[in-house]
Amino acid sequence: MKTIQPRLPKGMRDILPRQMVLRQHVTAIVEQAFTEFGFEPLITPAVELSEILLGKYGSESEKLIYMVEHPGGKEELALRYDLSVPLSRVVAQYPELPKPFRRYQIAPVWRAERPQKGRYREFYQCDADIVGSASMLADAEIIALINTILRRIGFQQFVTLLNDRKILTGIGQFLGVPDVKLPELYRCIDKLDKIGLEGVRKELRDTGLDAALSDRVLGLLRPDGDRPVTWDRAALDAMRLQMSNCPLAVEGISELQELLSYLPALGVAEEFYRVDLAMVRGLDYYTGPIFETLVVEPRIGSITGGGRFDGLVGRFTAQSQPATGTTIGLERIIDVLEELQMFPADLGQTAVQVLVTVFNPELVSESLKLATELRAAGLHCELYYGKDALGNQIRYALKRGVPLLVIAGPDELSAGRVTVRDLRAKFQSQVARASLPQALRERLATPPIPEAH
Amino acid sequence: MKTIQPRLPKGMRDILPRQMVLRQHVTAIVEQAFTEFGFEPLITPAVELSEILLGKYGSESEKLIYMVEHPGGKEELALRYDLSVPLSRVVAQYPELPKPFRRYQIAPVWRAERPQKGRYREFYQCDADIVGSASMLADAEIIALINTILRRIGFQQFVTLLNDRKILTGIGQFLGVPDVKLPELYRCIDKLDKIGLEGVRKELRDTGLDAALSDRVLGLLRPDGDRPVTWDRAALDAMRLQMSNCPLAVEGISELQELLSYLPALGVAEEFYRVDLAMVRGLDYYTGPIFETLVVEPRIGSITGGGRFDGLVGRFTAQSQPATGTTIGLERIIDVLEELQMFPADLGQTAVQVLVTVFNPELVSESLKLATELRAAGLHCELYYGKDALGNQIRYALKRGVPLLVIAGPDELSAGRVTVRDLRAKFQSQVARASLPQALRERLATPPIPEAH
Repeated sequence: MKTIQPRLPKGMRDILPRQMVLRQHVTAIVEQAFTEFGFEPLITPAVELSEILLGKYGSESEKLIYMVEHPGGKEELALRYDLSVPLSRVVAQYPELPKPFRRYQIAPVWRAERPQKGRYREFYQCDADIVGSASMLADAEIIALINTILRRIGFQQFVTLLNDRKILTGIGQFLGVPDVKLPELYRCIDKLDKIGLEGVRKELRDTGLDAALSDRVLGLLRPDGDRPVTWDRAALDAMRLQMSNCPLAVEGISELQELLSYLPALGVAEEFYRVDLAMVRGLDYYTGPIFETLVVEPRIGSITGGGRFDGLVGRFTAQSQPATGTTIGLERIIDVLEELQMFPADLGQTAVQVLVTVFNPELVSESLKLATELRAAGLHCELYYGKDALGNQIRYALKRGVPLLVIAGPDELSAGRVTVRDLRAKFQSQVARASLPQALRERLATPPIPEAH
Repeated sequence: MKTIQPRLPKGMRDILPRQMVLRQHVTAIVEQAFTEFGFEPLITPAVELSEILLGKYGSESEKLIYMVEHPGGKEELALRYDLSVPLSRVVAQYPELPKPFRRYQIAPVWRAERPQKGRYREFYQCDADIVGSASMLADAEIIALINTILRRIGFQQFVTLLNDRKILTGIGQFLGVPDVKLPELYRCIDKLDKIGLEGVRKELRDTGLDAALSDRVLGLLRPDGDRPVTWDRAALDAMRLQMSNCPLAVEGISELQELLSYLPALGVAEEFYRVDLAMVRGLDYYTGPIFETLVVEPRIGSITGGGRFDGLVGRFTAQSQPATGTTIGLERIIDVLEELQMFPADLGQTAVQVLVTVFNPELVSESLKLATELRAAGLHCELYYGKDALGNQIRYALKRGVPLLVIAGPDELSAGRVTVRDLRAKFQSQVARASLPQALRERLATPPIPEAH
């Protein structure tokens, strides 16, 4: 029989067990926080009808959607591109779901993007969304959720930039920017931090926008020129006064101020957020508050974001639903943690906590009993299968990165004892068999003491 | 804008939060047992190169494989059909993986089968496999693993049938059944329990197998006619003697006897397993011990199975690897548990443990602080967003199935206290704010006391 070369599709990858240790560490933190904040899990199929996905992401993005079919199948199918559109379909499809509907989903999505470092064609999104509430409490809780997750993961210096799409749209309408020019206006303004006031002015000129108009927009967003504005309560009040003839902008400013008022009681310290009226998020479907979180030190930039999308459910049903939420890119977080070597040192190489050795073939039943006792006590226990000498079994455990070893020889067994060896510390001791699970737990909880020289 | 009808592809479904409670209960048991037995997690992409999947499952099965493509893509892609073939690819692709490689994977697979009750086109498999060990200890541990999982889920009367492909193949070769007739022989013998000795004899005749040959095969498997054989040590020894000229069958019997010798020390009680030389599993690729677990009471039949497949890795690399493992179908287990109403009564309708109400809009910050404190203590806490009267908030919690409610009015707050209401027991009490997390935990751990009448 011809062998087939074992390989993966372009841009796809396997996550091998050693890498899974890091991944499960992050996933557990994210899922725990989602659950603490009252979000409930949802599973949707990877395959959706094409018509559900098409027309939602823009024509450039649509080219990245994978199509699916089976022999004789009559449906036009596709792999999901994100988790927000399936969520919107679910909310429209089951109107009986209690509102607000707070769901989380941690699942892969597929995009046929050009593969490059840190970008994969299958990647995992961690979404938490609240559907059915227009309250700014919902947006504030999403920001508190992001804050909680990033702090628990170990980030110390990061900031969530806040804005509201209503303000941007209001400014545009108020100053008379033609509707067709609005997307270009936003795209240019988003670059303020990168290319400065003059750069943006030039880009706006290139789009054909009236120069006086550009100046007025930029004058509102950057009254002090290139110096970024601190959008504190006073500055926002001043902006509201200036925009008092534009109900949309006024509503956006009120939304932001209400949202801000909730953050202290939600435990989000002031250092972790800042209003930035020039922050624009890429997706078209945002309608209210938007947020983007940057890791400031080290300076790695955007790590997650989100916002309010009150119109998306309305693509599937006459009665839309207000909605807000966030998407955390699992791979982005993991890549950053690895780059910055931010993983806890005691995470280890494997979830296996203890290897039960087999002293000799006659004693295999004793080792099986020991392993069974340890598993019943909830320990993660591997049994050695080979008939090798103890030295080989120890080398195997070292290679695998298993921290603890249990050895049960005939003398020990007849004395009702077993030997525990800590391979991290090159420490070993005999313990009574009955207290073995407890002894192993204590060893695992104690940072290993390095061997004395 | 035209709305798109929200609906799912044929045979696909969403798992809504209420259903997820049951699902996570089962998944947690399965994953915990996998981890205790020393299995490590692996993620492979949903999309594989078609050539990896084709030629492994048989032509009928191949028709059920979903094909995948993206605009401009040059690769022939497909959605995975199971988790065993991707595992075999992984083992061949990364020869540096330490052996034995014990991995688990809980993930969806896709098959375009005709939808029917209990059968979905996307369904989840829970696979645990050991690659790189030919030891019968590996097979014995897989059986102990299945036993542990089913007992923890709540099954009490079930039995794992054991056989070895080498015995069947050996019997066939020994008696001179032509190789091309072997698959048909197995297919017929698999029906012994269903259609009895005469039924199988007739079916064998229909396949054109020589009648004397059929009788000799059936005479070996059922020496006492329709009465099933108890294949204890003595019966297996007798069979080994009869087959002593057939090394393959002798090897199979020895494997089974060795495997059986390990089960007591692994905590698998005798009532939970039985050798059945007439048990045949469907998949072609099994090469050694095979197992199939039946739930006996209530009589619902096969619930999981597995076996040794020493040749599969060899489809991808010159040097194959011995391998054994099991596949647990998550949906099958959940459907059975629901049908038999076997879920723990205290599982509830939601993972949310407590709803923090908002007494009035002036006190919203107090409720935010309470929610933040409870979350920091690890409780699963939802905050009420509306500005409704308390009665509406309570009705909402009842509808959602949230067990506990926290109420913080002005009098209570000024006294440093809050009210806890248990909606399951219609019980309420005031507790000091500092001990609120502890009080809620105790309530959750106590079965609710029904209201006195």
